[in-house]
Parts: sequence; structure tokens; C-alpha cells
Amino acid sequence: MHPDNLLQQINFIKEIDKVKLIQRKTKLFNSDRNENDAEHSWHLAMMTIVLAEHAEVPIDVLKVLKMVLIHDIVEIDAGDTFIYDTVKSHSNTDEERLAANRIFGMLPKEQAEEFISIWEEFELGQTNEAKFARSMDRLEPLLQNTSNKGGTWAEFDVDYHKVYEKKKVIKEGSTALWNYAENLINESVEKGILKKSDSKS
Amino acid sequence: MHPDNLLQQINFIKEIDKVKLIQRKTKLFNSDRNENDAEHSWHLAMMTIVLAEHAEVPIDVLKVLKMVLIHDIVEIDAGDTFIYDTVKSHSNTDEERLAANRIFGMLPKEQAEEFISIWEEFELGQTNEAKFARSMDRLEPLLQNTSNKGGTWAEFDVDYHKVYEKKKVIKEGSTALWNYAENLINESVEKGILKKSDSKS
Ligand SMILES: [Ca+2]
Repeated sequence: MHPDNLLQQINFIKEIDKVKLIQRKTKLFNSDRNENDAEHSWHLAMMTIVLAEHAEVPIDVLKVLKMVLIHDIVEIDAGDTFIYDTVKSHSNTDEERLAANRIFGMLPKEQAEEFISIWEEFELGQTNEAKFARSMDRLEPLLQNTSNKGGTWAEFDVDYHKVYEKKKVIKEGSTALWNYAENLINESVEKGILKKSDSKS
Repeated sequence: MHPDNLLQQINFIKEIDKVKLIQRKTKLFNSDRNENDAEHSWHLAMMTIVLAEHAEVPIDVLKVLKMVLIHDIVEIDAGDTFIYDTVKSHSNTDEERLAANRIFGMLPKEQAEEFISIWEEFELGQTNEAKFARSMDRLEPLLQNTSNKGGTWAEFDVDYHKVYEKKKVIKEGSTALWNYAENLINESVEKGILKKSDSKS
């Protein structure tokens, strides 16, 4: 190990404390308080460990954990993008790429390259690990909203078709989890906590 | 998979949201706000990924991640124990054991057994993985306090000898990290943010 490695790593560890200050739109299950990105990332990591057996194909759990733990660190510079935001689409990642280079770039070279590559893999969503990690990222707010009488759906006037469209990528990570999720979405319409307009017929 | 497994797992995932409401004594690096257990666990997981190369002996990183991610879940029932509390010592784990059985017991049997066993391994601190996980748990508040002009040391009137005693277990996980930590502690005395009484000579 190069003697400077540890100091670079400690500076990175201090810098990412800021993730705890990034508020998401979604609220906690048991509180009216908004969730922050560190709490969200911890919850996705727990979900990964607990639900890995449902992955469509066997996955490298350690890699998925790294993905979900670091996936929102770029928001220190780029901010949280709300999934139902119609102006700033999540696919606009120029700002996030700059953020990844700056923040992960604080680490020793090899490690910086590894973290940037894992973040890019998650963003592209093509590998089995990225697909499973993304299904965790979509499932958590679904569980939150259905536990919170509609949560962000009610608050931001989002309808069934939009939700279904965004959530169906869960299937790429796990059919079993998608079956559960699809059922939750349909139940939400029946319960009246998610509106279903007929406009898209 | 037994068809009930997923429902048990989802109930567990909802239950552990409460970890986000457990306040620690330590404050964030960049804010006057107290840290909660979910944020703390996420930070330890990030530190594990970043600092694993400094482990005294090669470690199973996935296992350490599981340890640090779940280590404070028992506090949902048992509450946070402050490391410098002189009344309620952390080694009093009867309440925590009951909590582990109840909360991890929400999971399917095999998984419940795995989580309880990983939590116990962390608590005992005998394996290489547990030693490294515990060194992460001691290093994070040290970084926070030294970034916060003494933080909980000043607030709760803790002195050098107590800090040194609690932190020296970092060495069991990593000599390199201990060298860094010991230096930080000594610097804190020089900077006047950690008092060193002569009573223990
Ligand atoms: Ca604790």
C-alpha cells in the first residue's frame, strides 16, 4: 500500500457523510419524516441480503451491495432526482458523471476506477447484478408508499400507469419480486390510494 | 423457496425501518444533528469496502458487510448504549439477545439463524471478520469527534485514558488503522479537544 492511500481514503469517508443530508421525496415507513440517501442506501443493502435468493439468476451479492451502497453518492454534487419528475429526467447523467469523477476520484487510483465502474454498471442496468440492484431501488419506495397510504403518489399526483411503467423493471431483477410488486400496485388501486385514470386506454 | 418466505422477509424489511429512528450520541461530520443507527451502519459499510485492504489478515468482506449492516438492529428493542455510559455497560446483552431473537426471528428459519449467528459473532469479537467490523465501529465516532472539536468527548466529559482504552481494539482489526487512530487521539490532546488528566499515572 502506498502511504498516502489511507489519508485519501479517510478524506473520502469524511466527504460522503454529506449523503446523510440529501433528502429524498419518500417518507419513512413509521414516520412523517423524509428519508435521506444514507438511510435509503442502508435499507437497499439490507434488502439485498434478505432477498438475494429471489434473484432471477444467481448474483454476486458483494457486488450488488457495493452498487446499492454507493449508487447515490453522486447526489452530493448532483442532488436527488425524483423518479416522477417530468422536467429533469434521471437519464440526464452528465452532472452525475462529473460528480462521480470528483467524489470517487478522491480515492486511490485503482479504487477510484473500481467505484466509478461499479456506479456506471448500476446506471446502465445491463448486468444481472445491476438489474437486481435496480429492482431493490424500485421496490423500497413501493413498500414505503403502500405503507403510507399512497405517500409520494398522492402527494405528487402520480397515477397507476406511471407507477406501473417505472416499477416493471423489478421483473428484470426477479420475477418473484415483480409478482409481489405488481400485486401491491393493483391492490393500491383497489384500496383507493393509487388513482387509475382511463385516459391511457 | 417456501411461498411464505417472501412475506416474512417483507415484514422484516418493514420492521427494520425503525433503525432510522434510533438516535446515537455522536453527531454528523457536517452538521449539528445526531446520527441515527441506519446512517451509522451505512457509513460503517462504506468504510469496510474502502478500508478492507488494511485488515490485519485477509477477511471475508461480504461477511463483515453483513455484520456492520445488521449490528445495531437489536437496538430497535434494546435502545442505543453509549460506549462511555458507566451505568449500562455494552456487555449487558441480555436485552439485546431477546431483541435479536424477536427481530431476526421474523425471517424464514434458516435466514433467522444466519443473522443471529452473524450478530453473535460480531458481539463476541473473536473472528477476524468480527475484529475488523468492530474496528470500523470504533473508528467512525473517532473521526466524527475529531472533526467536531471533541464532539461527545467534550459533551460527556470523557478523557484521554477512557478514549484510548475503548479505541485500542481497533488494533485487533488493523495495525495500520490503529496507528492512524492513535495518532489522531494524541493530536486531539495537543489540540486541546481531548483532556488528559494525570490521575492515572
Ligand atoms: Ca451501538
